[in-house]
Amino acid sequence: MPYEYETNGAAIYKQSFATIRAEADLARFDADEEQVAVRMIHAAGMVGLEEFVHFSPNFVKAARDAMEAGAPIFCDARMVSEGVTRFRLPAENEVICTLHDERVRPLAEKMSNTRSAAALELWRDKLEGSVVAIGNAPTALFHLLNMLEDPDCPRPAAIIGCPVGFVGAVESKDALWEAQPVPSCIVKGRLGGSAITVAAINAIASRAE
Amino acid sequence: MPYEYETNGAAIYKQSFATIRAEADLARFDADEEQVAVRMIHAAGMVGLEEFVHFSPNFVKAARDAMEAGAPIFCDARMVSEGVTRFRLPAENEVICTLHDERVRPLAEKMSNTRSAAALELWRDKLEGSVVAIGNAPTALFHLLNMLEDPDCPRPAAIIGCPVGFVGAVESKDALWEAQPVPSCIVKGRLGGSAITVAAINAIASRAE
Repeated sequence: MPYEYETNGAAIYKQSFATIRAEADLARFDADEEQVAVRMIHAAGMVGLEEFVHFSPNFVKAARDAMEAGAPIFCDARMVSEGVTRFRLPAENEVICTLHDERVRPLAEKMSNTRSAAALELWRDKLEGSVVAIGNAPTALFHLLNMLEDPDCPRPAAIIGCPVGFVGAVESKDALWEAQPVPSCIVKGRLGGSAITVAAINAIASRAE
Repeated sequence: MPYEYETNGAAIYKQSFATIRAEADLARFDADEEQVAVRMIHAAGMVGLEEFVHFSPNFVKAARDAMEAGAPIFCDARMVSEGVTRFRLPAENEVICTLHDERVRPLAEKMSNTRSAAALELWRDKLEGSVVAIGNAPTALFHLLNMLEDPDCPRPAAIIGCPVGFVGAVESKDALWEAQPVPSCIVKGRLGGSAITVAAINAIASRAE
């Protein structure tokens, strides 16, 4: 006897988002934020995540305006850049991950930092007005904050700060939230990761559900 | 003032795994399972995940033996295949995701199923003795179970079944766990996803922490 299950992708999405909206506490989000938060909960498979999701007041607009103007999207990990749904992007935006660039390893050694942090040094040329998505490495988010301490460093339009884990994730996201050098979105605490980060990018890229 | 943080990758891993082992309840796992579970918790940033992690008695050995014998690793999503750390693989194993193969879209239409499910039809040639990792789509796991209902279908050596979400994830993982057509690992419930799935692959590939 074959297993029977819902095989219609659109129906699966619709039912998933309806379940999330029935179960999650989304009251403190405005309409744009709510759509982003719903998709983040969807990616995590976890109602309750919304408690940890925080947006700067103008974050969604800043990030969406940048994408619609053709801004590149910088990602700290290939799992993030590969997850972005290309057909949702409003301007065939470049999605860039420099982690595996051959210059990164020697640069990391020179900086005495991780490759994830060193990879950001290769973003400077196109960083101005971009959308930055950190979904893996706390060291990448900390290094971004240090880069932005320099007033001459180009400034992204918005930052999605969702590194995950047990060392530096909490601290780097708290630091981003306190500094807010540009409009930002974070998942407070240890939770985060590439799937949640990709979900935020995909939700900002298009309102389509 | 620059932000100060741990910049040594090895130290970050060591401290992360120590925190997980101090906080998580890992008593019911054997030594091999414990290593896999710790890495899954690490990827999720979530102590407590272990409650939902279940292994067939001989799962880690079956999956590791297959990898060491050079078996390919089949993944349902690019976020999974891209996350596998190549240098950890014991036999330069092929890591295969067929989701974006041009044959998949027409096949999905013909099957009246999702592209994620249809993509598995392209696995048959190398499926025998492989390691299968489903980290995204419940429809892929359900379709795999239906393929394996046919006694003539080639059989993987082991299945990591960790699709995530609100429609079919719970049901497909319960179905895998009940049937156990080959040794399997699941994350029961809605939780799962590419990061947790990749963590399991990376832990099986090498005991190195």
